[in-house]
Amino acid sequence: MKNVPFKGIIAYPITPFDANENVDINLYKTLLEKLIVNGAHGVAPLGSTGVMPYLTDSEKEAITEATIQQTNGRVPVLVGVSNLTTERTIYHAKFAEKAGATAAMIIPMSYWKLTDDEIVKHYDAVASKISIPIMAYNNPATGGVDMSPALLKRLLEIPNVTMIKESTGDVQRMHFLRKELGEDVAFYNGSNPLALAAFAAGAAGWCTAAPNLIPKLNVDLYNAIQNNDLKAAQDIFYKQVNLLKFIVNKGLPRAIKSGLEIQGQNGGHLRSPLQPLSESEVAELKQVLNGIQV
Amino acid sequence: MKNVPFKGIIAYPITPFDANENVDINLYKTLLEKLIVNGAHGVAPLGSTGVMPYLTDSEKEAITEATIQQTNGRVPVLVGVSNLTTERTIYHAKFAEKAGATAAMIIPMSYWKLTDDEIVKHYDAVASKISIPIMAYNNPATGGVDMSPALLKRLLEIPNVTMIKESTGDVQRMHFLRKELGEDVAFYNGSNPLALAAFAAGAAGWCTAAPNLIPKLNVDLYNAIQNNDLKAAQDIFYKQVNLLKFIVNKGLPRAIKSGLEIQGQNGGHLRSPLQPLSESEVAELKQVLNGIQV
Amino acid sequence: MKNVPFKGIIAYPITPFDANENVDINLYKTLLEKLIVNGAHGVAPLGSTGVMPYLTDSEKEAITEATIQQTNGRVPVLVGVSNLTTERTIYHAKFAEKAGATAAMIIPMSYWKLTDDEIVKHYDAVASKISIPIMAYNNPATGGVDMSPALLKRLLEIPNVTMIKESTGDVQRMHFLRKELGEDVAFYNGSNPLALAAFAAGAAGWCTAAPNLIPKLNVDLYNAIQNNDLKAAQDIFYKQVNLLKFIVNKGLPRAIKSGLEIQGQNGGHLRSPLQPLSESEVAELKQVLNGIQV
Amino acid sequence: MKNVPFKGIIAYPITPFDANENVDINLYKTLLEKLIVNGAHGVAPLGSTGVMPYLTDSEKEAITEATIQQTNGRVPVLVGVSNLTTERTIYHAKFAEKAGATAAMIIPMSYWKLTDDEIVKHYDAVASKISIPIMAYNNPATGGVDMSPALLKRLLEIPNVTMIKESTGDVQRMHFLRKELGEDVAFYNGSNPLALAAFAAGAAGWCTAAPNLIPKLNVDLYNAIQNNDLKAAQDIFYKQVNLLKFIVNKGLPRAIKSGLEIQGQNGGHLRSPLQPLSESEVAELKQVLNGIQV
Repeated sequence: MKNVPFKGIIAYPITPFDANENVDINLYKTLLEKLIVNGAHGVAPLGSTGVMPYLTDSEKEAITEATIQQTNGRVPVLVGVSNLTTERTIYHAKFAEKAGATAAMIIPMSYWKLTDDEIVKHYDAVASKISIPIMAYNNPATGGVDMSPALLKRLLEIPNVTMIKESTGDVQRMHFLRKELGEDVAFYNGSNPLALAAFAAGAAGWCTAAPNLIPKLNVDLYNAIQNNDLKAAQDIFYKQVNLLKFIVNKGLPRAIKSGLEIQGQNGGHLRSPLQPLSESEVAELKQVLNGIQV
Repeated sequence: MKNVPFKGIIAYPITPFDANENVDINLYKTLLEKLIVNGAHGVAPLGSTGVMPYLTDSEKEAITEATIQQTNGRVPVLVGVSNLTTERTIYHAKFAEKAGATAAMIIPMSYWKLTDDEIVKHYDAVASKISIPIMAYNNPATGGVDMSPALLKRLLEIPNVTMIKESTGDVQRMHFLRKELGEDVAFYNGSNPLALAAFAAGAAGWCTAAPNLIPKLNVDLYNAIQNNDLKAAQDIFYKQVNLLKFIVNKGLPRAIKSGLEIQGQNGGHLRSPLQPLSESEVAELKQVLNGIQV
Repeated sequence: MKNVPFKGIIAYPITPFDANENVDINLYKTLLEKLIVNGAHGVAPLGSTGVMPYLTDSEKEAITEATIQQTNGRVPVLVGVSNLTTERTIYHAKFAEKAGATAAMIIPMSYWKLTDDEIVKHYDAVASKISIPIMAYNNPATGGVDMSPALLKRLLEIPNVTMIKESTGDVQRMHFLRKELGEDVAFYNGSNPLALAAFAAGAAGWCTAAPNLIPKLNVDLYNAIQNNDLKAAQDIFYKQVNLLKFIVNKGLPRAIKSGLEIQGQNGGHLRSPLQPLSESEVAELKQVLNGIQV
Repeated sequence: MKNVPFKGIIAYPITPFDANENVDINLYKTLLEKLIVNGAHGVAPLGSTGVMPYLTDSEKEAITEATIQQTNGRVPVLVGVSNLTTERTIYHAKFAEKAGATAAMIIPMSYWKLTDDEIVKHYDAVASKISIPIMAYNNPATGGVDMSPALLKRLLEIPNVTMIKESTGDVQRMHFLRKELGEDVAFYNGSNPLALAAFAAGAAGWCTAAPNLIPKLNVDLYNAIQNNDLKAAQDIFYKQVNLLKFIVNKGLPRAIKSGLEIQGQNGGHLRSPLQPLSESEVAELKQVLNGIQV
């Protein structure tokens, strides 16, 4: 078995800003701590939820260091280090490793659509410069490129590319990953509404922003699956599915911020051009949250 | 609970032709009998697998009568009665009821995209002329129109529209059906590669052509789900997933015919323009079938 | 140059029904006559506009004969003979030829997606049974299959397949047809909103239902192109573009029927499940028609 | 008429790199000079062709200054200033204005899909900080968001948003822009294969990387349109359409670099992860270039 340090619920913290749209590190640590004490099996800063592409290099470094320090070894840390250029990706991957990250998550961001060869060369260049394992992340909606199962197979030939995260929203991709890549390859689900289907298909974990709002339901779903209790898992999933759909449809950073505020917590500010949910969207989210019987 | 006479594995027989491309009723009965004795919980003639749209009115009537006669009450019979015009749909629905069908399956076939109002009016006109329950069938790929969950909700207000079959291949549709329409509404999966995900989501049954080739694996999957044994279900599903994908990709009538022949049975002829699988496709199917360890 | 009997504006008559949803042949002839005297360079019965797939075999034959009789040689007649099965396509193609049609239009209707080989075999089987030229018609939205330029090239190797009609709505397909198939191959535009772009790209003609409502604007556009007067063509096109978009969006049979009625003519009835435009849609169409300054 | 300083052929220079993947400003100036002397009616640095998103802030500033200096008022300069955050977009827009740019081009880059309100607020915030006109650029393929015609209409209410560039590849968008926004609004085509259709639809200009390789054919097309000579325009367009398709399919920076080298010029290096065309792609490009009879 390759080096696979994650399983279960891998929680995405948001990156909160202050009123001047500067990163609010203290609030970040508070929100991160809540994820850990509420049972997340891992944390993943600088993902889409953490608006990584909207941050400067030094802001990314500050978030990385704050995460390692606050987590303090209680759960493994998966740091997003993706960048449009190979040179910057290497830079952030090395920074994450040095800071103490457990693993690095890399999506092939692409303004110009990358060929398969370009993508392999990109991962190879980064992987050769670090020793920690890499999770290759496929999300055409945000990354701009859809990595085929065949390409993912090529990436897994790179020694420290050991994990795959799938966010296409197509459960058949997971069937392929399990069937073609073998039971030894760990694949993770990044599509919230597919949480039940992905676990049913054998996903090792679920990377999700939902634990910011409903950590118990997320962890309970994983436990039901571990207990081979499909009926319970189905029940628990249907309690949360409307929220999962809502936060995906509205954009995770915006939806999580509003949800935290509805729950009486501080969600911080967003960085422009991202704007808070509208009043009617907030009302809808209240209704969804109230509709959850835990 | 509304009138819902189907659950489990609902098997689609193919409609075989003779060398002159006329329907071969004797071979049809033989293949149908095999589905029943191999454990199908229901049979569904005149579906896509049965190339219903390629048949004349009298051929459809002959298939309907042969099915009722051969089944002889052992399992419920779901007859496809869809037609481009409302008048012909009513005609075939009445014929099916009179012949003894348990229920009618109706997809809103559309050359011209139908509006929601046109679709409701169509179902309403047919439903008012028969007493047996109707399964509304959503399959944009073959029917040409994608019925939204909101539209399906409207259809379910028609008293004898009691069942929904979803073949979009998107498991999230099933989440919506279960969540919005309530646990009382029976929904069926018509997308073979989603068999596991759909059962995990609570589907009452699986309408499938696969029992023509692998009846035991299909029934075993349903039984594992009934036993709340997800690990076993996962195992059984992964044994058959490659075949499920193959028969969908190649077109069910063509793939089932070839599969039967590989298994040493008579699959009959196809009606033009449909042509048998190519030699290389047959070789691929052999490999897929051989790869299944029952 | 191959046998190419069409150019300019090829007008689609609608197939009107009486109050009992039976074909109204007398009204059909009246509407057809109007197309001819208003300048159409050809007529095309039994197309999508003529709701061909909703008609019985004998209704199709009656429309074919009525068209030949009423046209009486004044303009060429292109008869739609498409059918799901090869056998029925051959039947209708032979009927059309015997009745006196100038050419036959064939779209590969497909419930089951056809392979390229199946499509070639289908056209080949039909073409070998008739002597009149065939227009191959590509319209994935209604036919269910998208014929690639490479496949169209193969079809053109069949001696009496001499014309291609493109309705994908993608002008780049026409560039390919012209560039790859050579200037000798006649291609026709079937996408109303692309009328100007298609003529600019070199289309030999425009198959359209619009002459039922705005024959002069349609013919004027063709004339401006013939006169190499792009500025005039642009002007004439922008006068009609909103109507072209409206009738496509609402479905041609429904929109033309309503438009005729707004213009004080008898548009007949539709056959269920097709229903008339809603009141608000009729109001919108009135506004579009009023907005045209001829 | 609003402030609209561009028409005709607006040429995109590439941003060449040296062997260490640093920007090669001298080579940039050489390539830019060639565009100007070969007849471009305007130049547009820091677009997609200029790999703007792959550059650091200081590299963007150096390119902006080099362009103004080298152009020296001979043709207007349109500088790309887009950025994921509003703050950085304002920064680059102000820099461009101060450096002497004629106008700024802004695409709403989006990692998280932006709502219409977020996009309007973004443009408004930037526009209020500069006095030069803005070209709003719609390109879902690279920007990640598709601005509807209705949204573009809202943007045009901002005083110095005076131009629209459309790169969806759908000529119907241009019909809408012309029809709904009025003849006073200048729209530009950014989809190379639509060059003829867009000019036929009334586009004021064509933003394109093609003049790096075939400047005379690009300018000739515009001149034919200006002379109202559609037949000539068609002829000239079909000479270049295969090249236009090739450079779009392969990615403009990669294809232009290779094309320059085939023509005996220095195309510089690319910045990783972008890699040169493969040998077989280079061979194909050679064939396309050789096939052009000027």
